[in-house]
Amino acid sequence: MSGEDAPAQQQNAVDQKQETKPAEEPKTEPPKTESEPAGAAEAAATPAAGAPDKAPEEETFTYRALVLTGYGGYDKVKLQVKKGKPALKAGEVLVRVKACGLNFADLMARQGLYERLPSPPVTPGMECSGVVEAVGEEVTDRKVGDKVMALSRFGMWQEVAVVPANHTFLIPEGMSFEEAAAFPVNYITAYMMLFDFGNLRPNQSVLIHAAAGGVGIAATQLCKTVKDVTVFGTASASKHETISQGGVTHAIDYRTKDYVEEVRKISPKGLDIILDPLGGSDTHKAYNLLKPMGKLITYGAANMLAGQRKNLLAMAKNWYHQFSIHTLSLIQGNKSVCGFHLGYLDGEIELIAQAMKTILDLYQEGKIKPRIDSTWHLEQVGDAMRKMQERNNIGKVVLTTEPMPEEEKKEEAKKKDDKKKDDKKKEEAKKEEKKDDKKKEEPKKEEKKEEEKKEEAKKEEK
Amino acid sequence: MSGEDAPAQQQNAVDQKQETKPAEEPKTEPPKTESEPAGAAEAAATPAAGAPDKAPEEETFTYRALVLTGYGGYDKVKLQVKKGKPALKAGEVLVRVKACGLNFADLMARQGLYERLPSPPVTPGMECSGVVEAVGEEVTDRKVGDKVMALSRFGMWQEVAVVPANHTFLIPEGMSFEEAAAFPVNYITAYMMLFDFGNLRPNQSVLIHAAAGGVGIAATQLCKTVKDVTVFGTASASKHETISQGGVTHAIDYRTKDYVEEVRKISPKGLDIILDPLGGSDTHKAYNLLKPMGKLITYGAANMLAGQRKNLLAMAKNWYHQFSIHTLSLIQGNKSVCGFHLGYLDGEIELIAQAMKTILDLYQEGKIKPRIDSTWHLEQVGDAMRKMQERNNIGKVVLTTEPMPEEEKKEEAKKKDDKKKDDKKKEEAKKEEKKDDKKKEEPKKEEKKEEEKKEEAKKEEK
Repeated sequence: MSGEDAPAQQQNAVDQKQETKPAEEPKTEPPKTESEPAGAAEAAATPAAGAPDKAPEEETFTYRALVLTGYGGYDKVKLQVKKGKPALKAGEVLVRVKACGLNFADLMARQGLYERLPSPPVTPGMECSGVVEAVGEEVTDRKVGDKVMALSRFGMWQEVAVVPANHTFLIPEGMSFEEAAAFPVNYITAYMMLFDFGNLRPNQSVLIHAAAGGVGIAATQLCKTVKDVTVFGTASASKHETISQGGVTHAIDYRTKDYVEEVRKISPKGLDIILDPLGGSDTHKAYNLLKPMGKLITYGAANMLAGQRKNLLAMAKNWYHQFSIHTLSLIQGNKSVCGFHLGYLDGEIELIAQAMKTILDLYQEGKIKPRIDSTWHLEQVGDAMRKMQERNNIGKVVLTTEPMPEEEKKEEAKKKDDKKKDDKKKEEAKKEEKKDDKKKEEPKKEEKKEEEKKEEAKKEEK
Repeated sequence: MSGEDAPAQQQNAVDQKQETKPAEEPKTEPPKTESEPAGAAEAAATPAAGAPDKAPEEETFTYRALVLTGYGGYDKVKLQVKKGKPALKAGEVLVRVKACGLNFADLMARQGLYERLPSPPVTPGMECSGVVEAVGEEVTDRKVGDKVMALSRFGMWQEVAVVPANHTFLIPEGMSFEEAAAFPVNYITAYMMLFDFGNLRPNQSVLIHAAAGGVGIAATQLCKTVKDVTVFGTASASKHETISQGGVTHAIDYRTKDYVEEVRKISPKGLDIILDPLGGSDTHKAYNLLKPMGKLITYGAANMLAGQRKNLLAMAKNWYHQFSIHTLSLIQGNKSVCGFHLGYLDGEIELIAQAMKTILDLYQEGKIKPRIDSTWHLEQVGDAMRKMQERNNIGKVVLTTEPMPEEEKKEEAKKKDDKKKDDKKKEEAKKEEKKDDKKKEEPKKEEKKEEEKKEEAKKEEK
């Protein structure tokens, strides 16, 4: 989230990558100390403790960062230690990160399916919360010590992060760092979809897919700020109690029921607004489920994510079922189709600031509140991603930069080993299944041949 | 505009056609007098004056109606006299029509391009104003003598019209019948597009094509009810003064300038809302001209109308350039594409009533006011349609049911003759032009051959 428009961001992205380079190649000459940013001494105090006295701060400054080392499974995101204090340009601030949010785009990015992330090695992460540790020139509305949440195209999953000051927002009284890390992406997304594209008004009906996910919970809460809005929410049965308490009027178990049928039973004329994070054939269903003047807002292609690694079959299926619409159909149906993704909206500082102001007000009025599903240490990022991707979360999955206690680390290492073995077993089991399937198919083919023979015989009889 | 949903409307449409049948076949037995609707005696007084005393009112009741006798040019809409008082069903009212509005859909319908009009013979017309002359059973909120404006899928271009009471709206104090006939379709259309799909807010920018047309003027006025909205309006240069006075911030002559370039000069980032009545390649241009979070609202295919009769080339071109959009593009652009047509919204009584309430309030506050371009007698419907189709109007083209003075009728007949001759001359001139073009092409071909020969010669030299 930097710069005023796309080309500028691209430039900035490259800059950011170069900035982290010294840390990855610690043997090169350390950068020379030039003008020291305000508060830098204070900032360096903790991490540089114990470093030799004479070394320049830029070298003794170390921090942990999650780095996507290549596209693939959960293990492609590795925890590394970086050296060298990132330099600040005018308008930027250095944030000592406390917590980071996980988003679906991060999972897509890991598989190489999110073009807004520069190629690896790169630090993922679109949002974090923390404390301002240094401010660059021309920054007037942030000071060292400010508690902030920050939005960025990437680079938030590390202990220190550099962001333009206008991509940070002050954390209101009473909001924890975890809540703050869970706030920006989900709530801005839900807000813009419902109130800008959706134009949600009293008495309307809304379908929220993955109602127990981060965006789903935010959207449900925001629907409840409008009078008499009916919320249809899909989630697996075990999550129904929680989402119903959260404001979903009709919880639908999409695993056992046809959600289109369920909606039609209650609302035969269809719905006013549908939020669609799935893509593919579900977008078609959503379109047909719209009332006249209804709005379909598509904001992802979760159907493309099947398994840890890029799944070509799921992608092809999604592509094949890709929704495409003619204006004539829109006119005859009086319908609206919108696309939203915060990751492509990063030039629109003003729009985002406006949305942020409104939702922070709603937070302070007690009308919305992020629900944290679980918090994980940076070392556990793989498990955190897995939890989200396998849809086992209810609410936001958050990373904390708190160091992991030594005992936990040992346990973690053991767990990882077990998990690897487990994964291997599963994979082998799958292979066996496939073999079995093939074997089963063989007899089927035989059967078919038999049938064909019979047919032939019949024909001959005639 | 009848019934609660599509199939019901279809049914109703058929009913309506059957009702007018007796008038078209006046030699069949007149329908028997059953329960006489309230106010019917009063209603029949004027038109039936001078009819023999003993004939049943249903037969002596006559009224003039415009009838589309087949698809084609302006002359396909003929003025006929119908006999027999239309019977009212429960919930319906009989309106003595004073004025009718012309809409683009009527022009499309004449060419057979609007599927919401039943096949000829049929009376076109989507809106009218007049006085309630009789009310059917179960009508509680309308009484004989009420001044109303009415909306319908068709059948409004006649002296008496039958409509469901909930498709009529009381004319506010101070609004003329002509204004009332110019009001419903244009203002509801503009309102729904701007404030439902468009979600127009202060400081936004809007592009209005055909800003001097009925919808264009209504949309401009409605934009002005929101603070600091910038309106870009296209129209030919001669209309710029009028539309600028009406509220257009930047008038663009689309005939001499590239409107996309003109908009970009002033608003490099693009626009928040674009109303597109054109279709085809202009829809593509509009989409590319949207800002992030921008909304494109397409509500017609005026580009398909070229000439009096169905123009296959224009249609094919429009079809070829038909806009079709993938969700991925919408997501990456954060854009919205909507389709609107009031003709397909006729089941949504409540939505329409709500919109009507809001815009009638705005009228009474003096914030909006229909602009009448010209008023024509029923006999002049051809000229009225021509004026609109050739884009010579500024504001609404209206028909009045006032009888035409005898002298004017004579003049009209002469004019018609002249026009026919004129049309013939024009057509012949066109044919000549075509011949000339062909002749010009011939020498070009010769030139080409010469060039080819030279090229050959050059190659040989090498």
